[in-house]
Amino acid sequence: MTRPAEPAGHEVPAMRPAEPVAWPHGKSAAASFTFDVDAESAVLFGNPAAAASRLSVMSHQAYGPLTGLPRLLRILAEHRVRATFFVPGYTAHRHPGAVRAIADGGHEIAHHGYLHESLAEVDEAAEAEILDRGLAALAEVAGVRPVGYRAPMWELTYDSPRLLAERGFLYDSSLMDADVPYELDAGGATSIVEIPVHWGLDDWEQYCYLPDISGSGLIEDPAKAVSMWRGEFEALRREGGCFVLTNHPFLSGRPARAAALEGLIEHVAGCTDVWLAPLGDIARHVRGLALKPRAIPKPELRGSPP
Amino acid sequence: MTRPAEPAGHEVPAMRPAEPVAWPHGKSAAASFTFDVDAESAVLFGNPAAAASRLSVMSHQAYGPLTGLPRLLRILAEHRVRATFFVPGYTAHRHPGAVRAIADGGHEIAHHGYLHESLAEVDEAAEAEILDRGLAALAEVAGVRPVGYRAPMWELTYDSPRLLAERGFLYDSSLMDADVPYELDAGGATSIVEIPVHWGLDDWEQYCYLPDISGSGLIEDPAKAVSMWRGEFEALRREGGCFVLTNHPFLSGRPARAAALEGLIEHVAGCTDVWLAPLGDIARHVRGLALKPRAIPKPELRGSPP
Amino acid sequence: MTRPAEPAGHEVPAMRPAEPVAWPHGKSAAASFTFDVDAESAVLFGNPAAAASRLSVMSHQAYGPLTGLPRLLRILAEHRVRATFFVPGYTAHRHPGAVRAIADGGHEIAHHGYLHESLAEVDEAAEAEILDRGLAALAEVAGVRPVGYRAPMWELTYDSPRLLAERGFLYDSSLMDADVPYELDAGGATSIVEIPVHWGLDDWEQYCYLPDISGSGLIEDPAKAVSMWRGEFEALRREGGCFVLTNHPFLSGRPARAAALEGLIEHVAGCTDVWLAPLGDIARHVRGLALKPRAIPKPELRGSPP
Amino acid sequence: MTRPAEPAGHEVPAMRPAEPVAWPHGKSAAASFTFDVDAESAVLFGNPAAAASRLSVMSHQAYGPLTGLPRLLRILAEHRVRATFFVPGYTAHRHPGAVRAIADGGHEIAHHGYLHESLAEVDEAAEAEILDRGLAALAEVAGVRPVGYRAPMWELTYDSPRLLAERGFLYDSSLMDADVPYELDAGGATSIVEIPVHWGLDDWEQYCYLPDISGSGLIEDPAKAVSMWRGEFEALRREGGCFVLTNHPFLSGRPARAAALEGLIEHVAGCTDVWLAPLGDIARHVRGLALKPRAIPKPELRGSPP
Repeated sequence: MTRPAEPAGHEVPAMRPAEPVAWPHGKSAAASFTFDVDAESAVLFGNPAAAASRLSVMSHQAYGPLTGLPRLLRILAEHRVRATFFVPGYTAHRHPGAVRAIADGGHEIAHHGYLHESLAEVDEAAEAEILDRGLAALAEVAGVRPVGYRAPMWELTYDSPRLLAERGFLYDSSLMDADVPYELDAGGATSIVEIPVHWGLDDWEQYCYLPDISGSGLIEDPAKAVSMWRGEFEALRREGGCFVLTNHPFLSGRPARAAALEGLIEHVAGCTDVWLAPLGDIARHVRGLALKPRAIPKPELRGSPP
Repeated sequence: MTRPAEPAGHEVPAMRPAEPVAWPHGKSAAASFTFDVDAESAVLFGNPAAAASRLSVMSHQAYGPLTGLPRLLRILAEHRVRATFFVPGYTAHRHPGAVRAIADGGHEIAHHGYLHESLAEVDEAAEAEILDRGLAALAEVAGVRPVGYRAPMWELTYDSPRLLAERGFLYDSSLMDADVPYELDAGGATSIVEIPVHWGLDDWEQYCYLPDISGSGLIEDPAKAVSMWRGEFEALRREGGCFVLTNHPFLSGRPARAAALEGLIEHVAGCTDVWLAPLGDIARHVRGLALKPRAIPKPELRGSPP
Repeated sequence: MTRPAEPAGHEVPAMRPAEPVAWPHGKSAAASFTFDVDAESAVLFGNPAAAASRLSVMSHQAYGPLTGLPRLLRILAEHRVRATFFVPGYTAHRHPGAVRAIADGGHEIAHHGYLHESLAEVDEAAEAEILDRGLAALAEVAGVRPVGYRAPMWELTYDSPRLLAERGFLYDSSLMDADVPYELDAGGATSIVEIPVHWGLDDWEQYCYLPDISGSGLIEDPAKAVSMWRGEFEALRREGGCFVLTNHPFLSGRPARAAALEGLIEHVAGCTDVWLAPLGDIARHVRGLALKPRAIPKPELRGSPP
Repeated sequence: MTRPAEPAGHEVPAMRPAEPVAWPHGKSAAASFTFDVDAESAVLFGNPAAAASRLSVMSHQAYGPLTGLPRLLRILAEHRVRATFFVPGYTAHRHPGAVRAIADGGHEIAHHGYLHESLAEVDEAAEAEILDRGLAALAEVAGVRPVGYRAPMWELTYDSPRLLAERGFLYDSSLMDADVPYELDAGGATSIVEIPVHWGLDDWEQYCYLPDISGSGLIEDPAKAVSMWRGEFEALRREGGCFVLTNHPFLSGRPARAAALEGLIEHVAGCTDVWLAPLGDIARHVRGLALKPRAIPKPELRGSPP
């Protein structure tokens, strides 16, 4: 195959892969356990009518802060693992004791919207207002000014990086294009650290079932889910990546799921070659590396499709 | 992290976790096998046209009382296990012999609506009428005044606890926010015992497939379903919880599924540290503990979402 | 629990379980491998536009008669197993050589509609016309007058039994309320033999995926599907039941699926306590038992739901 | 069963099975690893709004060329396996470096539409224009004139074979009616080589999840997916077939999935009885066999369904 000269104007220069990341303390990879404390908010935003009539659905979500969260906090404490908890503002208002228990456990509390709003459907002003309401709720209830953010439904918008940078956030954890953190261009001369996630490292697809609201309709065995996550941990570990697992207390706080997750936590915590830390610590480390920011340009089609 | 003084007015006082439950006879955990005898009703409510033309669908549902139920009753008898059967009034009218066979086996018969009506879509007066029709059907066919209730589709409404208390019900088994039973505030000075359930301890998500009516489209191996349920039993057992499994005779009455379930029944019945009883017995025990009732307040959003 | 006198008028007398069936030759159970040769018809009826533009979809369906069927016929011949093939009239017209190869293999050819029409949506006159078109096609192409029928999509209507009896059919295989065959009341003094099936003994839910047309979106490993079917075979075998497996050449004719199915065929054929026969043979045996016909009355609701 | 004389006029002569294929170098079967480098295009065609607001979705797709592809190229290089990469024109324009890296690795680059357009919805003129835009993009970016084509979504139309033949394509790889390649009638006296694929040999059904865009909602363990694919490889190997696996870098480029796929690649590459080659090499071999072209006639219904 012959190849012509580089065609001018077609290269998208910033769309380059993330660089490998050097981990601290001589570690060869990083890992973080993260929990999205959605509780009622994950249902209320998309299904407000459920609040008025579906008591069972509300109780299903309340399991998270009431029953699942204490169990998970106990497990983390036993294995001396600090984690990151993404807390919607509404959860803080409805379950303030639960949120304070997270802080009391020495864990990081981060921002996860106010009512778990899917940002794919809101404009920039509304997104800004949601960010500010979430900040206010976390400050009011837990006295926390979070440095980290995760978009509800992992729906970061093209406005989000700038809005986050303007509010002093250090990092986001909602994108999926790399196995390691990087500096994400946030417009102007600013950037935020991005710590990528993935649907395959999330408990929602494995466990969530709420009729007419969410889920494939199937519910998986924790043995399958945790085996799959462990496989991804081992593969990322071999390659110097950053393993970020996302669990929801209303899902993974159930007894057998928590027990299976505990097995994984224990394993990861025992890997001396892996730096296990809250996302905030990871973000601070990455910020210290002064990486060149990457941009993910909005797709522009060259000519319209037929 | 510093924390401000407790913000006034934000605490939702009744939204506290269920208390641990002390089990009788020195047992450390409880378990109950429950069966929802939906038969045709589960299809007829949402798909009335199916009754007029879809004979195969009706035969699929009739398998429950005709073929699955006798097999399950035989298994329970062999292992001397008493279970709780939730029977819609319509099932009692269409399959009276089946319902009387349940009673003859020494099992508990409880209320499960009249036509398996999803209460998320009905108002309070209609819910009351359904409750009364179901009571009338069970009295007429089986001479039973049930003390227990389970909402069809596990769709308890905010009206349900009061309506149940007014009718003298001792317990409900439709909510999902705890691993143990508790007293559920039913308004006024009344309460009912709540014995929680969960979608992960239900055979519907594993086995049910009715084209255009229900199911993910996939059908799971009984080996997978029962292994998952057993894992949850063991985890609840270790933590002093109350294992409540829900099976449907039209699903789990099939030969290999019943055989796999029998393995679990035999295992649970053989665990001398676990109190295996019908839900009515469990509810009476819990009532005797005089627990302070919990409320699940209807979510109120502080300010409207943008 | 006390029980009142039998309430008059509520018993549905004909809705009794199927009786156990005595199998011939001292066998304790029966089994039959059946194949629905849907090919293009299963797609064309519900998605006629696919015929005009979706060549890949049509090729996916054509795999059945072109590639899957010869493989399956070879496997059946190697294990000297005679099976029943349900052939839509359209398949006979489009793939006459395939249909004749089935007959040449000594297998039973039975009726499966003309264009795999879902009868839930047609009236009695249309259903009669479809039956007659299917009969004409099988007579024309393969010289066969089938004694057996299976409703496409297993959607038997309340008219079907009478229409089948009027046309001299001996049996149907589309209902799901029993583990053994029985005589199904067909109106007047007539009846047909019913040989029940089940979604759990069907390859569609395990393997079928056609975007926008059918399938859950997941595709299962043959190891899982066949293990589940084998479990059901063993359970039915222990209980004297009749194992009827349904496979589609366009699905189970694929190499690894056919190989896994072959393992099951070999196993069943080697069970000397099981009578392995085409459905027609089983129906003739059951007819000879002169069982009392059962009816499945159309559900009538006592009073309308609120 | 008696059989009448062959009915005149009903035979569809060209609808005959593909012939067995003799493989070169004394090999008894063939295999090819293929990768569809969809990246953003697979989402943009059907969900153009996602480009404007859903940054996370775009990052999920960008993972393919940025992170997954380099990993897969490294694996292929380590095992000295040449593969075929189907590259939409839009991917070439947005990720030119990635496309050139494929060519630099000695792999085949083939055509996969411009914006991954589902051809089931476009007319012949539009399909022709898409083909030409895709050709222009691959020429411009990578200097490649591809000999192979795969329809996006595997949606070949009845026009496609002729349009491909007119543009000098040697082969297509989008149909599903055989286990071996064949000559596909392209109208007039022309034909193209068809190298069949199947949904069961695709990673999309096992791994893909994009809310509101694609996927069953479940995500499978790579252990399950690769075990199933290996089973199909072994079955095709035994029967002299052609194993064509389809992976997407944005899905199978994730660490544990790539590791599992590497195990399969290593296994296949080590089977000395199997000819492992890019599809282009396989097509050239098949063309040399001068097979008689097969047609897949558009279904014509004899009389309209009732």
